[in-house]
Formats: sequence, C-alpha cells, structure tokens
Amino acid sequence: MSADLDAFLGAVRARTEARLRRVLGASREHLAASAPAALPMLQSAEDLTLRGGKRLRPALLHAAARAAGPVGDADRALEDLGAALELFQTYLLIHDDWMDGDALRRGAPSVHAALADTWKDPHVGACTAILAGNLLSGIVHDLVATVELPGERHRAVLQAFATLERDVIVGQCLDVLHHPDVEKIHDLKTGSYTVQGPIALGLAAVGAAERLGEHLARFARPLGLAFQLRDDLLGAFGSEAETGKPVGGDFREGKQTWLTRHALQHLPPEDKLQLSRMLGHPDADTDTVRALLLRAGARDSAEARVALLGRECLDALQGAPLDPEGASLLAGLARRITERAR
Amino acid sequence: MSADLDAFLGAVRARTEARLRRVLGASREHLAASAPAALPMLQSAEDLTLRGGKRLRPALLHAAARAAGPVGDADRALEDLGAALELFQTYLLIHDDWMDGDALRRGAPSVHAALADTWKDPHVGACTAILAGNLLSGIVHDLVATVELPGERHRAVLQAFATLERDVIVGQCLDVLHHPDVEKIHDLKTGSYTVQGPIALGLAAVGAAERLGEHLARFARPLGLAFQLRDDLLGAFGSEAETGKPVGGDFREGKQTWLTRHALQHLPPEDKLQLSRMLGHPDADTDTVRALLLRAGARDSAEARVALLGRECLDALQGAPLDPEGASLLAGLARRITERAR
Repeated sequence: MSADLDAFLGAVRARTEARLRRVLGASREHLAASAPAALPMLQSAEDLTLRGGKRLRPALLHAAARAAGPVGDADRALEDLGAALELFQTYLLIHDDWMDGDALRRGAPSVHAALADTWKDPHVGACTAILAGNLLSGIVHDLVATVELPGERHRAVLQAFATLERDVIVGQCLDVLHHPDVEKIHDLKTGSYTVQGPIALGLAAVGAAERLGEHLARFARPLGLAFQLRDDLLGAFGSEAETGKPVGGDFREGKQTWLTRHALQHLPPEDKLQLSRMLGHPDADTDTVRALLLRAGARDSAEARVALLGRECLDALQGAPLDPEGASLLAGLARRITERAR
Repeated sequence: MSADLDAFLGAVRARTEARLRRVLGASREHLAASAPAALPMLQSAEDLTLRGGKRLRPALLHAAARAAGPVGDADRALEDLGAALELFQTYLLIHDDWMDGDALRRGAPSVHAALADTWKDPHVGACTAILAGNLLSGIVHDLVATVELPGERHRAVLQAFATLERDVIVGQCLDVLHHPDVEKIHDLKTGSYTVQGPIALGLAAVGAAERLGEHLARFARPLGLAFQLRDDLLGAFGSEAETGKPVGGDFREGKQTWLTRHALQHLPPEDKLQLSRMLGHPDADTDTVRALLLRAGARDSAEARVALLGRECLDALQGAPLDPEGASLLAGLARRITERAR
C-alpha cells in the first residue's frame, strides 16, 4: 500500500508541477512583454512556488475525489484546482512571512526579503511582496473560476473555495492579534486550506459534497489540527535543514502554539515566568525554551495528541461509504502528515 | 440630457449601495458569529467602502452595457459587478494607502491608520489592513465568479476581470518602483479598473465585447488618462475638503505625476534643481511646489491635455454603432470625469 501511495504522490506531484509551470510561464511571458520592470516580483513568487515539494494539498484533493468513486470528467478540473491550491499557498506564505518578519522560507530568503535585496529597500521589498501575493491571488481565482465543470459542481467548487479563503484570512487575523484560542486559529488558519478545503474541493469537483462532506469533515478536522501540531513540534524541536525555516523563530516572534500554551499551563511559577519572558524576545535562547517545554511535558503531550488525532481521522474513514482505493490513499496521507519529519 | 444623467447616476448609486450593504452585512454577520475579535478589520473596510460616493465605475459599467442595446437578462449581473468593482476599489485603496503611507482617505483615517489606532500598534494595523483588503478581494472574486450569466458571456466577464486585476497590480508595482513611464503607470494602475475594466465588463455581460470592444477601448483609454490627470491636478492644486486627502501628499511622497514630469522638463536649471530637491522631502512646502509647477506651465498644459483627451473620447463615440441613449450617458460621464472638482 505504501508503494501505491508513493506512486500516487509522484503522479500528483508531476501533474501539479507541470500545470504550475504552464500557468506561471504564461504570466511571466505576459509580464516580460508588457512591464519587464515588474518581473522580479513574479520571479520570486515563482521561485517560492517551485521550491515547494510535497504538494500535500493537491494530493488530498485528488485522494478525496477518488474516495468518492471514479473521477470521470473531473480529472482536468482536479489538476487545475491542485495547481490553484499550491499558488494560493504561495500567496499566503508571502503575506504571512512579511507579517511575521520571517526572512527564510523553504530553505531560501522569503519573498519580501529577496525583493528587499533586489531593490535595496525594505519597504519596496515589502510592497512588492504584498503585490506578488495579490498577483498570485488573481491567478488562483481565475483558475478556480474557469475550471471546466458542469454548472452545479462548479458552483459547489466556488463555494468551497470561498469558504476556505475566508477562513484562512480570518484565522491569520486572529493569529496576528495573538488571539488566545490557539486551536481555533489552527483550525481556521491552517486546517482550512491544508486539509478541509482541499478535501471539500475534491468532493465538490466530483459532485459528492452532499453525500460525503459530513464523513470527510470528520476526517479533515483532526487531520488539520494534527498537521499544525506536527508543524509546531518541528518548529520547536526540528532543525533548519528539516523545516527550511529558522530554528526557534516561533519563540522569538512570541507566537502562541499548542506547546507554549501547554507549558505555560503546566510549569511551576518560576519556570512559567522565565518562559513567558523569553517568548517574543528577539534574543530568546532556543535551547532554554526547548528545555522548559520538555520539562513541562509539552512535547510528549503534543505527540500523544497528534497520535490521538491521527486515530480519529482513521476512525472517521472506517464508517464512511468510500471507494476502498481512495480511502486507502486518504489513510496513507493521514499517516504521512501526522508522522512527517519536515 | 444632464437631468437624464443625474437620474441615471442616482439610480446606479442606489442599486450599488443596496447591494454593497447586503454583501458586507452578510460578511459581518458571519464574522460576528465565528470570530468576533476580527470584526474591526471588516468594519473599517466597510466604513471606507460606504464613505465612497460617486460610484463612477458602476456607472461606466451600466452605461457601457446600455450603449450596446437593451440590457435584458444581464440586469442583475450588472448590479453584482458594480458592487464588485466598488469592493475591488476598496481593496486596492487599503493596500495602496499602506504602501504610500497615506493616513487619510475619503476624509477620514485610512484603514491601516484606523486599525493601528484600534490596536495601538502600527504593525498590527498594517497586517490587519492587508488582511482586510485580502478578505474583500475574496468577496469580490466570489461575486464575479457566481454572477448569473450564460456560459459564454460569463467567460468573457471572467476574462475581462482577470485582465483588469492583473493590469492594476502590475501598474501599482511600477508605481512603487518609481518607474519613469508615468503614462504607462496611469494606464495600468488607474485606467484599467476605473474606465477600461468597467466598460469591458459591461460589454462582456451583455455579449457585446467582440462587436464594440474596439470602439469603446478608443473611448476608455483617453478617459482613463484624463481621469488620472484630473486626479493629479486636484491633488496638486485642490483642497483637502475637495479631495479627502492631505494637500501636497503626492509631493511629499515624491510621486512622479504628469505635472512634476512636465515641470522638470520645462523649468530652467535652477528651478528644476529646487523642485527635484523638494519632491519626496517630508517637509516639502506645498505653496513653493505649486508655484514652480505654475511657472513651468504644468497646470495649463495638463488642463489642455485633459481637454484634448476628453475630445478624443467623444470622437470615439461618434463613429461607433451605439444605442443613442447609452452613448449619451457615456458622453455625459466622460464630461463629468474630465471636469470634476473632487
């Protein structure tokens, strides 16, 4: 089954990459002819998109569609939607990295950092990064709006996309505001476009949203939370080589994660005070924060919670009237996502 | 004819406002139920939208559709697209004002300034303003993608919208980069979504893009440039009460306009040096810059150019096979736009 999953992932990746290259290539050609001075803006967004490797969101989209039965005439639409999801992610990452002041993404300078360097001006870098995101957002919407599907299924796709877009923006707003409900932020900001949205889009494209939406929402929600928890664990305890992001970045930004919240709830007063002083401090020492999280049992608790959420996902698949092959792909993806090392 | 134009503008304004209130009200209700902490983000975007008064873009959209003949089954779609254009403008203004550091818009604090005040933090204000724009962009795209039109006309609408969106973003990028080709920036950044885009959308909605697109492009392009020139003239010589923006803001930002470019080309060396030193200087004295522009003849030349562009628009209407009533509305709008005092 793992070989099947690898073959499936490889095929989705290849198709998504090819579509991405065509879409971005067409935009680049147009820009080269009409306003070449603006090319670095698009180029850095293209670089970031093509540096992404896993293409998990298109894989979840395709797997959800296959879990509903034969994909039939939706095959081409799924390819477009998979590319749209990846470009949508690039747009979000560009804007988020500027908001969080993250200078590194996927092992290279983030877009605002790269463009600040191109134009030797941080504000021009920030503005053109925001615009690069906006340009991608336009391309994404054009892909989603022109996907070739019969009327009713297309309407369902548009509705699913509008929902995921609204959720992710509101989630990012709560994150920027340091809203105390960390799980709600994860659900809206990450789960929405990482798991719930791709699955909803896949079902909508094959006309199975009503029949299976409820079942797969019970699969998607815990998986989205598990994905974010794994992300937090990697951000806290992983290496830069594994994550492509600076180690301890979340600590220095003072980002509330499930780990820090757990630690602040479980540490004795003195340790708690030390931890809360370090979080959000630009010189926060990563090793000290890590030691405090470990002492609070945050890592073990988070691992236990990821495992629990993973079982919830798999249980949700058990009861659902799914195509066995598609269900097995979804189960395999859930295992990869909860167990991933980067 | 002026009474007819006023009645038409009043009717478009009323319909657009009603639609905007419904769309924004639905978003607000959803947010109030799901994430009330994020409400100020949407509220400030809503305030800015409803502070806008002229609704020129929806008027051009409706007038272009009527110039093609009876509007027929596209009436409701035009209402949706008119609201979409206004929300799209709010999105652009929010992002632009942050990029330009403009603290005032339509006579009140711009969105990033209002939100910085709400949360007592300029960076949180900037982030949530960008997100407010992104949220509106999502709403706009949902409106455009779900507009009720038969397949081929809907595809033409989507294509027109994708073009105007790409042009305006690329134009803003060139503006941020202080690209020397001022007229190209105006064409892409302003003409695209102010005149060319609304007209293209109106024609697409009634299925007249192929038959009349060329004719009305000859009307739209000079009108877009005239609109921007009038904007520059008001920004340079108008009052804050007229424009809702700080007097001399363009000078202090060092924004290249047709006026400054003309003056730098026509002033004697000493005056030229003085002007170029003042442009982009935070303490630039508005009266001195105005005097230099007047000495260079920039104001008279710009007025002459606006008049010439206005005649070009009206000439383009003469030769086109248009419905007389719709053509007369377009002509009236062109006069209002070129002669407007705010």
